[in-house]
Amino acid sequence: MSDVTTTDLYEVTMAMSYLREDMRAPATFSLFVRDLPPGRGFLVAAGLEPALDFLADYRVEQEDVEEFAAALHRPVRELEPLLGLAFQGEVRAVPEGHVVFSGEPLLEVTAPLPQAQLVETYLLNQLCHQTVVASKAARCVLAAAGRPVVDFSLRRTHGPWAGRQAARLGALVGFAGTSNVAAATALGIPASGTMAHSYIEAFAGEEEAFRAFARSHPGPVTFLVDTYETEEGVRIAARVLRDLGRGPGCAIRLDSGDLDALSRRARALLDAAGLADVRIVASGGLDEYSVARLVRTGAPIDVYAVGTRVGVAADAPYLDAAYKLVEYDGRPVMKLSSAKVTAPGRKQVHRRAGKPDVIALWREETPDAARPLLRTVMRDGHRTGPPDSWQAARDRFREDVTALPGSARRLHDPESVHPVISRALEELTANVRADIEARFRPGRLAAVSRTAATPSSALSAGPS
Amino acid sequence: MSDVTTTDLYEVTMAMSYLREDMRAPATFSLFVRDLPPGRGFLVAAGLEPALDFLADYRVEQEDVEEFAAALHRPVRELEPLLGLAFQGEVRAVPEGHVVFSGEPLLEVTAPLPQAQLVETYLLNQLCHQTVVASKAARCVLAAAGRPVVDFSLRRTHGPWAGRQAARLGALVGFAGTSNVAAATALGIPASGTMAHSYIEAFAGEEEAFRAFARSHPGPVTFLVDTYETEEGVRIAARVLRDLGRGPGCAIRLDSGDLDALSRRARALLDAAGLADVRIVASGGLDEYSVARLVRTGAPIDVYAVGTRVGVAADAPYLDAAYKLVEYDGRPVMKLSSAKVTAPGRKQVHRRAGKPDVIALWREETPDAARPLLRTVMRDGHRTGPPDSWQAARDRFREDVTALPGSARRLHDPESVHPVISRALEELTANVRADIEARFRPGRLAAVSRTAATPSSALSAGPS
Repeated sequence: MSDVTTTDLYEVTMAMSYLREDMRAPATFSLFVRDLPPGRGFLVAAGLEPALDFLADYRVEQEDVEEFAAALHRPVRELEPLLGLAFQGEVRAVPEGHVVFSGEPLLEVTAPLPQAQLVETYLLNQLCHQTVVASKAARCVLAAAGRPVVDFSLRRTHGPWAGRQAARLGALVGFAGTSNVAAATALGIPASGTMAHSYIEAFAGEEEAFRAFARSHPGPVTFLVDTYETEEGVRIAARVLRDLGRGPGCAIRLDSGDLDALSRRARALLDAAGLADVRIVASGGLDEYSVARLVRTGAPIDVYAVGTRVGVAADAPYLDAAYKLVEYDGRPVMKLSSAKVTAPGRKQVHRRAGKPDVIALWREETPDAARPLLRTVMRDGHRTGPPDSWQAARDRFREDVTALPGSARRLHDPESVHPVISRALEELTANVRADIEARFRPGRLAAVSRTAATPSSALSAGPS
Repeated sequence: MSDVTTTDLYEVTMAMSYLREDMRAPATFSLFVRDLPPGRGFLVAAGLEPALDFLADYRVEQEDVEEFAAALHRPVRELEPLLGLAFQGEVRAVPEGHVVFSGEPLLEVTAPLPQAQLVETYLLNQLCHQTVVASKAARCVLAAAGRPVVDFSLRRTHGPWAGRQAARLGALVGFAGTSNVAAATALGIPASGTMAHSYIEAFAGEEEAFRAFARSHPGPVTFLVDTYETEEGVRIAARVLRDLGRGPGCAIRLDSGDLDALSRRARALLDAAGLADVRIVASGGLDEYSVARLVRTGAPIDVYAVGTRVGVAADAPYLDAAYKLVEYDGRPVMKLSSAKVTAPGRKQVHRRAGKPDVIALWREETPDAARPLLRTVMRDGHRTGPPDSWQAARDRFREDVTALPGSARRLHDPESVHPVISRALEELTANVRADIEARFRPGRLAAVSRTAATPSSALSAGPS
């Protein structure tokens, strides 16, 4: 399976046709989210870095051509015009970590039409999945209100690859660590985890298990205390820690039951045993809602480990995102059918302090005290700079989330920020729509016009 | 990222301790789903084949040891006892495609404790994800009631790897094809797809687009008709198909709007144009619920393409599955904390015609007219036979789903089948529980007993 053939078949059939018709003029596709999923006040842009890796390496090789031919049941020679096709276009995109809203392009590709089309499926896959998971993880960080959050999702993500991304995306929004060894070492994220219930059960009792664990792990240890009876488990853990003179850096973990009540009881028992510096880790089906509840009631939990629900973004596992042709050969285009209207033309997003973003045409001037969100990250098929790091993305997220209105940041029934549309973009949309409608007016079908208002006619207008 | 380090850190810390304590006795872990997700009447076992590939190849290499050491901030020499560790155990499992219910082991691993522990995370990841997606896809096949269903999910799955699995799992439950080229060619699944809205928009109009497409694709074509105004799109498609003398094997695709009304109108227009053999494909946010609705109202749709919601199993994207130690060194074990009680001992599932399954101890006799569901698929770390195919799994699914009671098969508020527990397993569970509770009775804490009822004492009892 090459990344090139990891594509919907229709990208290939369309590219074949474009090449045959010699339609190689520059096309711009805009990737954006139509509507935020229910319960989301914002999204965190993510997936750009793997997407750029894909584009930089994109090249149709002989074996790809053969796979295309096999899928289409066509002779290999019919697919040979695709051989050697590489991505040589420009990419303007929102760097990872920025907070984004509905309708804002996350990425715009401008390239010869066949190239821009062929990369659609993979780009959507990367940006949708990663933005979805980063956005869910971001909510956990907000819920924990400064307490460390750790990623335990690997066992439930949709495959090992998604597990690695979940670890990266958690770090990107400020998680303190991950249980995933491969992700931790590859990305420089602290690794976290000590023992499962099975470990306790393999010994005659909890005390034997804790002591054995401490023998092979001389540093800080975390004892899982809820295998049989939690309070008793805490007492045994406290006794072993005290006996061994351990404390600072050590912790107990609660993985089931009433975490609020159990954490209070555990804290009291630990404090009474002189182990005020032993921390309490909570896990077990946690998400932003349960974390927020525990924080609100003042449960003395020091670290939250989130897994399943966060790694698969359980309540919003996909985005209503589109990769739409907005310009071809200098002509702005749009789709009109049903409610799925898309605005034509290449775009830019202007972020303003204390005011909603403006979605504008890409060459409109940036208003005062605003900054453009889309950067040119690839030119002629090459990155314009070194790969971005998750640490840089984390800094962007921190800054953006701090600037968010509380109504967009809150967990329950958030109100998202709705970007405003610049006057120039509004005018262009109206003009292109009028042109398309005219073409479908009865009696005018024969007189199909290729013309449409050009964006330049409207460029002097400022953001509305 | 090796498959060996794609693991939760705690598997490594536990294995280190087991090796230090010389705890290498055989352990059995049972992987099962506690409760079906809401809205599910059954699950389709899946993920075993990639899991067995993982186990067969499992071997801790020098670079894995170095990664473990880095994650733990320990000297490499402390991890060296793990070097060369391979999986040499036995696996008994439910072959892919079988319908399964809550509490039934999908897989049981018996191996020296460190080996059986180290593979936990990866096995859970594979079986959970794939069972979830296969079970969702199965519901689409039921909803379509014999009409072909095609997988269009690649752009929304959680990464490219999950996209490939979605294609495989769709085929496994009877999908007719996939849009995913790599998956289609690697797995021998028909590939499906022709054009996107962007293709239409790149031309002056729909007619130009359809004609150009037909020029490069001499075989059957599918025209997407809803870019501007759907009825007009159908008329243009019909005109082009008639002009070109195409028809058999060709189709139009509806991707938005009121699919029921539009498909009826399209059918009428096509029939009136003498194109009764041109089929109608529907797509656009479909899942089992919307497909069932369209089938029920008699919409003349010939093929259903499902994507997003199915590829991520949107309404149930994870399973409450566990990988639990049930036996160590011949001693049955269980976890008692909170509501998460697990039954001890190695198990077998007996499937009976017309009656609920029986979950029994593994050496109980199979009742008359029943067959055991778990097969020995790996022994001494080697597969017991050639890899299974998705075609064989599909046959199993077909047989099992046909035998399901209608109440478990229905889409809305299904009633799952609850397996019964054999008397021997019930007795063992009661005995082990009593033993554990005795150990935690006040005043008896010092007298921890290692004994528990042995399974052999109860083995003569038949299924209750």
